[in-house]
This record gives sequence, structure tokens and C-alpha cells, in this order.
Amino acid sequence: MQTATAAPISQTAVQTAIAELQALLGDRLSTSTGVRDHHSKDESWHIPHRPDAVAFPNTTEEVSKIVQVCARHRVPVVAYGTGTSLEGAVIPEFGGVVIDLVNFDQVLQVNAEDLDVTVQARVTRKQLNDYIRDQGLFFPIDPGADASLGGMAATRASGTNAVRYGTMRENVLGLTVVLADGRIIRTSRRARKSAAGYDLTRLFVGSEGTLGIITEVTLRLYGIPEAMAAAVCSFDSLEGAINTVIQTIQLGVPIARIELLDDVQMDSVNRFSKLDYPVKDTLFVEFHGTENGVKEQAEIVQSIAAEHGGGEFKWATKPEERSHLWTARHDVTYANKALRPGCEIWATDVCVPISRLAECILETKKDLKESFLIAPLVGHVGDGNFHLGFLINREDPKELAEAERLNERLVMRALSMDGTCTGEHGIGLGKMKFLVAEHGEAVSVMREVKKALDPLGIMNPGKIFSM
Amino acid sequence: MQTATAAPISQTAVQTAIAELQALLGDRLSTSTGVRDHHSKDESWHIPHRPDAVAFPNTTEEVSKIVQVCARHRVPVVAYGTGTSLEGAVIPEFGGVVIDLVNFDQVLQVNAEDLDVTVQARVTRKQLNDYIRDQGLFFPIDPGADASLGGMAATRASGTNAVRYGTMRENVLGLTVVLADGRIIRTSRRARKSAAGYDLTRLFVGSEGTLGIITEVTLRLYGIPEAMAAAVCSFDSLEGAINTVIQTIQLGVPIARIELLDDVQMDSVNRFSKLDYPVKDTLFVEFHGTENGVKEQAEIVQSIAAEHGGGEFKWATKPEERSHLWTARHDVTYANKALRPGCEIWATDVCVPISRLAECILETKKDLKESFLIAPLVGHVGDGNFHLGFLINREDPKELAEAERLNERLVMRALSMDGTCTGEHGIGLGKMKFLVAEHGEAVSVMREVKKALDPLGIMNPGKIFSM
Repeated sequence: MQTATAAPISQTAVQTAIAELQALLGDRLSTSTGVRDHHSKDESWHIPHRPDAVAFPNTTEEVSKIVQVCARHRVPVVAYGTGTSLEGAVIPEFGGVVIDLVNFDQVLQVNAEDLDVTVQARVTRKQLNDYIRDQGLFFPIDPGADASLGGMAATRASGTNAVRYGTMRENVLGLTVVLADGRIIRTSRRARKSAAGYDLTRLFVGSEGTLGIITEVTLRLYGIPEAMAAAVCSFDSLEGAINTVIQTIQLGVPIARIELLDDVQMDSVNRFSKLDYPVKDTLFVEFHGTENGVKEQAEIVQSIAAEHGGGEFKWATKPEERSHLWTARHDVTYANKALRPGCEIWATDVCVPISRLAECILETKKDLKESFLIAPLVGHVGDGNFHLGFLINREDPKELAEAERLNERLVMRALSMDGTCTGEHGIGLGKMKFLVAEHGEAVSVMREVKKALDPLGIMNPGKIFSM
Repeated sequence: MQTATAAPISQTAVQTAIAELQALLGDRLSTSTGVRDHHSKDESWHIPHRPDAVAFPNTTEEVSKIVQVCARHRVPVVAYGTGTSLEGAVIPEFGGVVIDLVNFDQVLQVNAEDLDVTVQARVTRKQLNDYIRDQGLFFPIDPGADASLGGMAATRASGTNAVRYGTMRENVLGLTVVLADGRIIRTSRRARKSAAGYDLTRLFVGSEGTLGIITEVTLRLYGIPEAMAAAVCSFDSLEGAINTVIQTIQLGVPIARIELLDDVQMDSVNRFSKLDYPVKDTLFVEFHGTENGVKEQAEIVQSIAAEHGGGEFKWATKPEERSHLWTARHDVTYANKALRPGCEIWATDVCVPISRLAECILETKKDLKESFLIAPLVGHVGDGNFHLGFLINREDPKELAEAERLNERLVMRALSMDGTCTGEHGIGLGKMKFLVAEHGEAVSVMREVKKALDPLGIMNPGKIFSM
């Protein structure tokens, strides 16, 4: 079938749309080079592309009006949160209008009794956690960046806590979405579960702005556990670390976090954060529960680790110690950038069934050993999900080609193990070519849905599907 | 916009399709009155309607061929599992061909290390649990009936364990689906999470056969907990019972089950199962975990219950005792039917944010007190989900009208509390008229998806959306 594509974009149409938007928004519509540059890129290695204009709406109704103008003139529309996507999801490949949701920064309603909250799309995960901490609540999903919750919903983000708390897929209760023709919908009410019609919430979660623009998000919250303890443990071998993870999951230990950093990554973290961890394959773990529950979980995992060549656990139990421990983990991207000043990071991630994780990581490390590129490895290994960050000079075609080759080998290996080409970064620009390899005929169904909801192909064109 | 509808069904077309299907399936295509009668109804009060024929395919490819024949002649297709739906989801309202998946009864692949399994669609939940028990695994989702896992996916079923383990929404990893034109797709691979494209798995989960026919299901499994303990506790007041639930959830106790049976329901259960529980509002609870964890959870909930007028906990810890305790809970439908021999049960369910649960149940009980109909109340109250079962004589228009009036009041009350018109039974025939009240403009998006994936409107027509 035909791809849902934007018609060739007419520059006259773009200028007419911009004039209409200026009338609507006044100085909240910018065509300055600086502003357009700022909205031309994300945190990935993908080549920036400037939009024609950037709009700064204040309300969902204004977003609707902007989309209506763009639909009338067939001008691309790309939503922008914090610009921290890792596969080019927010790069306006075909120009058009970027809608920067920076003014959507309010926490709208905390329902502490129901353990849920509704926020505007540009509230970030840290902002939300600061807001609700006093009520004894927290929101666990934590991609590396302090991303916007709307953006996290749009890319189906996860992070280090997903092994226990799930991803955005499990933690979004409902969305307010502006559709490609400007209609505004609410995908769901606040009940914890519902069997009333199609699951539109999860259709928009992970749709990367290609079906509509998310302006409000209702999320599940969790009570801050009575006790939390984090620890770091180095291993003699990668197999030992991974087998510790596998056995922990299989035993059903409700571990909150279990993260792998390989030796290369530990070296990078040590240098950046001035730490002195052994340069070995290392697990970062965290336990949540009652005092007794945490003690019990910790004992089980320590004994599993000891069987697999793990060293002593170094504990952090006070909030500031735990926070310090995890900052090192969360800062890996910046640590890796510092390894090779001026480099770009080609970040990639795959996810496989946990039974294949050791094999997948070991074969990948073998590839890396034979390559001239450096790529630290870090993973949310409790989910079978791991990342590589190739340190590249984007201007060097040889390096680009090598990263592409290694990335393709990684993805095809994950697919051959019944895994996915991306566990959490999304398709964006970088994984489009693997979509059919992963999903086969199902991609035609995705295209049919895209065409039904965005017949003009104006919503973030060139992402997920090729044009 | 236009509804996706089946064109008026031509009897000539139906007969031509049947002839073609007979050529394809031989005696695995039946037009006998007995077989058609058997496939004309489910376990609901809704009026049966006979299909024109019933097909018994052996493979997904045969399902695809059957659907292709039906598509060519624009004949309705309805998938049939165990026929235990509660809102008429499997009733072939417009005749056509029922595809009985009775031969899809194989467990295809257990991946114990990955805690997942792939089954054919007609494997039932009990059959699956019998199959995997020896490997120390279980599948928690348990609607009242021993339903097929394909049917449970199609209706987004849940049950008593959802408060801890989620519903089919959270527990289906992937599906094999035959689309309305016969294409066969696999919605996802086995990785625990993925950000690769639209979430087709969850689009089909809960679509009630209106978008395609599920022939295989990949599910999450769980290790059988080290310790399990169940208990029953009677309360002086409904408020006391409900507030115990609310506080337990808000404290984050990982309770596996917390079920409410009201006094009317307890009377019914006592009679049917020859038990002597106090005829009072009662909670059935279950704890899963380590020995210590279960003990700790139980102590917390007992102390909460005691504060709210709860009596002593009667414990069941041995498997056969627990099983006996829960049989009483699972048999409520049969117990209620026995209360009024020959009656039909108009089963209905709603789900509200837990902060509104007490208010919603109390107002509903007030309605029931003022009515001449009897309707025991039972609920998966940890999710904010509860059920009524009106005992009616389907032939009596007065009783029907009264059940309809009470049901409408119940649903509108739940919606006014930001709840849903059905937590787990699905829309089927019975809740269609509430879909717009609940979702508003979002229903038009559901219709657009329906039209994109089933342009001829042959997949289970007349369900979810009106024709």
C-alpha cells in the first residue's frame, strides 16, 4: 500500500501558514535563526534540520488552532518538549512548524488517594518528583535526561526502574491529544482499568508525534517506599554479572533497579565523576520495600552474586548517598562525551528476552573489540535492554560507516533472538530501516492507522515510516 | 463521520460463502441447527442470534482463508472461544460465520527462563496453569469463567489478581492476528519492552474481535510465590470494608487479591456452596511473597481492618484450603443463578478511581434497596472495580426495564466520578450506548481505526459501535 506521506511542501504554503500563525500568536511565533536552530536538533548524532517557524502556544486550544492552520496548508507539525530524544524524533526533517510546549509546565491535579496525577506535557520527570515528594509520592520512570513527561509518553520511555515499575506503557493512565485535524480528545478516564473500547492511550504512547500532539498526561504514582537501599557490585566476568541478573529476575525478587555498566563504561564514569570504582563489569542495584523486605531481597541477591563471582556490595542507604550513586549512572552520556571531547554519541539500544541476554552482549562485545570505535555499554539488564554509545566524529564518513555497520549487526542479532530494535529510544530517524525486519506485515497495519489518523501526513513526517 | 458498517447482508452471498467454505473445510463447516444454536449465545442475558454457519479451522492459515471468503462476499465473521463473555461479545448479531477456535488448544512454547509462554487462542487459563505448574510457574489473570486466553485478550479481561499483576493489557506480550482481509500479522516479539512503532498488541487487546481474529497469544508468566495465604474477614459496615481496601492500596501493600462480597452476595454464596459465613459485607484477601513478606503484609492489613470494624481473619494457607476459599468467590455467578431458579443474570461492571469507590458503592446499594430487583454485589475493589448481577426474568419487560434503569444509573454515576462504564466485561452489546458518554470525540478516532482495518465492516459487526 501507499505510504502516508506529506505532499511536497510548498514554500508559498509555508509562508502563508506562518503569516496566519503570526496573526494568531503574535510574538509567540518565531522565525528567528537562533530559535529555529535551537529546535533543529536533539541529543542524538542525527543531522539537524531547521524548522520554518517555532510556535509557543499556551493552551491545548491554541495547539489545536496551530494544527488546523498547518493542516489547511499541508505544513509539517513537530511537537517539541526538552529536545532530549536520542533517535532524532524531534528533528523537523521536512521543516514546517515546531510546536514548543515550554509553556505547558503546570502540574494540574494530584490525586494522592488514587495515586495518580495529571500534568501538562512539558512538566519534566524531576519537576514532577519535586512537586509530589512532600506528599510521600514518586513517579519512577527515569530516562537518562530530565525529559518532559509528554515526550516520554510519545517515545514510550522507560529507564532504570522499569524492571519493577514498568515503562510509560504501563504508567500512563490517559492523555489529552490534539489530532492532525485539530480535534482534541481525551483517551481515557482515571479508572485503573477499563474494557471500554480501543486502547487509544497506548496507541498514542510510543507514536512519536506521528498521530497527534500530546498536551496533557495522566500518570500512575507510587508511595515512596518505607526503605530503599542501593549497592554497587563488581564482577570477575560479564557472564557472572548477567547470570546474576537472570537468576534474580527468575526468582521473582521485586528488585527496583538492576543496571549493568561494562568495564569501558566504568572507566568513563570514574574519570567523569572522579570516582574510583574497579574498572570491571559492574551491577548497580536498588531495593524498595519495607525494612525487612529490603533486607531479605538484598540477602537473596548478594548470595546469587557471590555464586557468580561478584565482589562485595558497596551500600548506599541515605538519600544523598543513593542519589550520588545513581548520578554516576545517569550521567553516562555526559561521561562518555568527555571521553573524546567534541565527539558525538551515536546512542543505540536493543532489548532481547533475558535468556538470550548474555549471548547477545558477549557477541556484541566481541564486535566492539574488533572495531576501531569505542562504545561503552550500559543496560537496564533486568528487562533484557542494553545500550551502546559509539563515540564518533560525525564528519568522518569512515567512523559513521563503522558505527552504522556495528549498529546493524547489533540490531539484526537482537531480532534473531526474538528481540526488538529499540527497547526505549524509539524509531525516530535512526531505526526506521529495521521496522519491517522486526514487524513484517504488521508495519502495513501501522501505516493504515497512520493514514486513517493523519491522512495529509503532516504530523512529524519522516519518522517511524519512511516518506 | 460515517460508521464502519457491514453492507446489508445478502442471503445469496451468505449461501455462496458457505458453499466455498464447505469446499475448504468439509465437515468442519457446520450448518446444523444444534451447532448454530450452541454458537448463538454467551453467558449474558442478551438475546441469542444464530449464525448461518460455524467453521472449525485447524490452523491460522485456515482462519485466514475463511476470512478471505467472508470478505469476498461481505459476510460477517465472529470468533468464538468458550462462549463465556458477559456482554454479548460473541453473539453473531447479524448472522454470518462463527469461527469456533476449539481446535486451537495447544500450548506452543513455554520459555521458563524468560517467564513467558505462547499458546493457541483456545487454551483456557486453567489448562495453561495445569500445564505450567510443574515448572513452578503460573498465569494470574482469572475472570470468573475458565475462559480461553484468546477471548480474554480480546475482551481485555482481568479478575481477582489484577490489583497486583495487572490485566490482560499488562500481561499480553504479543499476538498473532488474522486481519479483515486475511493477512496474518504478529504484533510483537518476545522482548519485555519495545519502543519500535505503534503498540498493535494493545490495539487488539480489548478490540472484541472487531479488528481481527486472535489465533495465538504470548503471555507473561510468574514464578509461583514461596508463600501464599488467603483469608476472609467480615465487617460491621460496607464503609469499613471499603476503607480497609483504600488504605491497603494507598500504603502500597503488594496484596495479590482483595475482593468485596456484600451481604446479599455472602448469603447467596453460603446457600450455594453450603458455607456458614456471617451474612455481612466481607473481604476475601490473598497475600503472595516470601514467608516473611506474607506475614508482614498480613499483619499490616489485619491492623487496618481492625481499625475499620473488621472481625477476625479466617486463614487458609494450604493449597486445597485456599482453593476451597476461592471457589466460593469464583462461583458467585452460579450461586446467584441458584438464588432464583430459571433466572438470567444481567451482569454489569464499572470501575472508578478508588477515592470514589465507597461513595459509588453506597449510592448504588441505596438504589438497589429501593428496587424490586435483587442484585448481589461483588468487586475487585483493589482496582476500584465492582459488579452487580441483576437476577431477572428476561421475558418480563418490567424487570428488563428496571435492570436497564439501574444499570444506566450505575454507569452514569461511575462516569460522573471519572470512572469507566466497564472495568473488565467489555462493551459488547450491552455497553454500546455509553461509549460516547465515556469517551466523547475519542470514539470517532476508534471508528476511524475500525474503518481503516475493517473497511467492509465484517469483523464482529454490531459490537462496540452501533451499526
